[in-house]
Amino acid sequence: MMHGKRSSRRQLLRMGAAVGGGILAGQRKAFGLDTPGKLGIPLGPYGERSPFEKAVRWRRESKTPETGSSFTPLQDSVGTLTPSSLHYERHHAGIPTIDPALHRLVIHGMVDRPLSLSMAEIKRLPSTTRTLVLECGGNSAGEWAAAAGADVQRSYGLVSCSEWTGVRLSLVLAAAGVRPGASWVIAEGADACRMERSIPIAKAMDDILLAYGQNGEAIRPAQGYPLRLIIPGWEGNTNVKWLHSLKLTDQAYMARDETAKYSDLMPDGKTRIFTYQMEAKSVITFPSGGHMLPTPGPYELTGLAWSGRGRIEQVEITTDGGRTWVKATLQEPRLPIALTRFRLPWRFDGQDTRIASRAIDETGYVQPTREALIAARGTNSVYHYNGIKFWHVRADGTVTNVEA
Amino acid sequence: MMHGKRSSRRQLLRMGAAVGGGILAGQRKAFGLDTPGKLGIPLGPYGERSPFEKAVRWRRESKTPETGSSFTPLQDSVGTLTPSSLHYERHHAGIPTIDPALHRLVIHGMVDRPLSLSMAEIKRLPSTTRTLVLECGGNSAGEWAAAAGADVQRSYGLVSCSEWTGVRLSLVLAAAGVRPGASWVIAEGADACRMERSIPIAKAMDDILLAYGQNGEAIRPAQGYPLRLIIPGWEGNTNVKWLHSLKLTDQAYMARDETAKYSDLMPDGKTRIFTYQMEAKSVITFPSGGHMLPTPGPYELTGLAWSGRGRIEQVEITTDGGRTWVKATLQEPRLPIALTRFRLPWRFDGQDTRIASRAIDETGYVQPTREALIAARGTNSVYHYNGIKFWHVRADGTVTNVEA
Repeated sequence: MMHGKRSSRRQLLRMGAAVGGGILAGQRKAFGLDTPGKLGIPLGPYGERSPFEKAVRWRRESKTPETGSSFTPLQDSVGTLTPSSLHYERHHAGIPTIDPALHRLVIHGMVDRPLSLSMAEIKRLPSTTRTLVLECGGNSAGEWAAAAGADVQRSYGLVSCSEWTGVRLSLVLAAAGVRPGASWVIAEGADACRMERSIPIAKAMDDILLAYGQNGEAIRPAQGYPLRLIIPGWEGNTNVKWLHSLKLTDQAYMARDETAKYSDLMPDGKTRIFTYQMEAKSVITFPSGGHMLPTPGPYELTGLAWSGRGRIEQVEITTDGGRTWVKATLQEPRLPIALTRFRLPWRFDGQDTRIASRAIDETGYVQPTREALIAARGTNSVYHYNGIKFWHVRADGTVTNVEA
Repeated sequence: MMHGKRSSRRQLLRMGAAVGGGILAGQRKAFGLDTPGKLGIPLGPYGERSPFEKAVRWRRESKTPETGSSFTPLQDSVGTLTPSSLHYERHHAGIPTIDPALHRLVIHGMVDRPLSLSMAEIKRLPSTTRTLVLECGGNSAGEWAAAAGADVQRSYGLVSCSEWTGVRLSLVLAAAGVRPGASWVIAEGADACRMERSIPIAKAMDDILLAYGQNGEAIRPAQGYPLRLIIPGWEGNTNVKWLHSLKLTDQAYMARDETAKYSDLMPDGKTRIFTYQMEAKSVITFPSGGHMLPTPGPYELTGLAWSGRGRIEQVEITTDGGRTWVKATLQEPRLPIALTRFRLPWRFDGQDTRIASRAIDETGYVQPTREALIAARGTNSVYHYNGIKFWHVRADGTVTNVEA
């Protein structure tokens, strides 16, 4: 253990936390322990967070706030889950208000038995639960052109992690009877724009969930209430929210969100489409852009890593601008396709430096440098940025985004 | 897999979900797919649940609502986590409103270097994250006298599960320097009653957390904001909320909540005290008291199991009043000392029956029958009820609590 009891003791003493001398019984008052206790707030039906906690999702000012993105405050994150209230949003026609008693999922097209399922019928089916990261294909898009947000929320906040519960799509498709030749599932949401994506049948028969639960309760409206497609490891946009239709077809729809959007223009003028898979990625959340290290001394450097292909195997950290890399400690359990918290004790010595993390997933994939990524893909892309992320720690303790 | 695609297909067909015939393009309207889309709600800074979701904590009406318990709606639970807003409460003097900038944790008594730590100082220390169940020692107390609540919320709802993040207590104690002879840590909360419990030093040096994070954000006020002792596997009451003082002593305090309360009166008139450890336990959450099975047919029977001693190894289900038992499927990952979801496909045949679950943990401990538990402990106890829990499923599909 690199950061044992001895170094913690030194750290606390350095922070001046030691109060010196014993606290005698009569000195309790000096430490605030004997201030009169005021009767607190009653028990309540539904708890809220402390009024002292102010973290919120960030979004650009807009005249059309029904379309756009809101970003998770990763700089305040602890652990590996994202509170549902702070899960990132990406909507194209606002959040519909859906009565679950009226909502139905229709499975139609190239099937033997078209189905129209109520939520009650879906909830009677065998269920499963998975903790999964969800990342917008456009997360950290600003990094391509070194025009990213100043802090980790605005530059990397389109990624969140929840415990999802639902029914395997393969069970429902088997019940409907997929006809020979059906090779695609067209998923459509009940939002005003009827957002739709084309999903290859192989993935549909594999691990996709019809999710109705998020973090132990019903999925939130901003995440697709009452029913969302959850596609492990695939870009957020394919995880169609407010799901009301699955049509089996023998071809993709070439929908707006898989042609005009969510495709990648390469340097040679060709476009990569159906780039569903999210690759390994990581970002240091503390310290990150906008943080201020009040003094030189010991800190815990921490961040998040994830891969659409499985478990995070290793995260390496540089605190000297990329010259040397050391292994971070990974929080267990490392769940496949979930946010994985990494940590490293670090001494800020008051010198200007750059810090970054590099994730390696269980397939052996190594998160590329920004330069390698741009060499392969150019800078026309909006989506699928996963280059190694540097933060600039200045001698005065301020931290900025190198790509901002 | 007991509940495969074939049986799911039969189940869906039985439920009448098949709509017959194909859905032609012009028939989209008939299935509600072409109703005009209304522009939805804008992106928001902090999301709320759907207005159609009504689950709340339950509490008895009281003239002193600052003291008592509120119960998690387990009948609505999915997955393994409890939403922080619905985490059970047990307060003795209400919820204090604490400014984290002013809050301090004082470590004093038999230490070499008394410490007074700010929240900022605590958060700079090495952190760790664990998903842990928290159960009130008095959960399901009504079952002792067969005077329990009618549903699983009121009878079993003093158990919840969160992802907790904080600092190991052992690091801070090592920094303070525990003096020879110090054998207890007296933990005290900043609520009006200064709730306190005595913790043996061996446990304090083992796996206790000074927790400031819950489910990815700051711990909620009702769960101890800004700082709570989290003691893996021990009764909820020892997990002191609003923690502001840890005093090292050479004896236990015999505080109110470990003598007058949270102790167990045996049949011979002696009392078990310091019964910290929570044993293996389980309860079926669906179907459970108050549920109504609308028709005979296939259902997914599901519930939660946990043990203060480690992982759940196996859960067995009886659907014939205890004559035969079959293994349930356990949701992975099975984390130690965390809620573990179990599931079993079950056909309700319209006959009156009794259903129950029996948990076995990784130590080999088997959840006892109610009769065996009472034979050992009598019926004077209030705390530590963990007998096998039966629900009565009547021929008409109504479900009641056998012990209510």
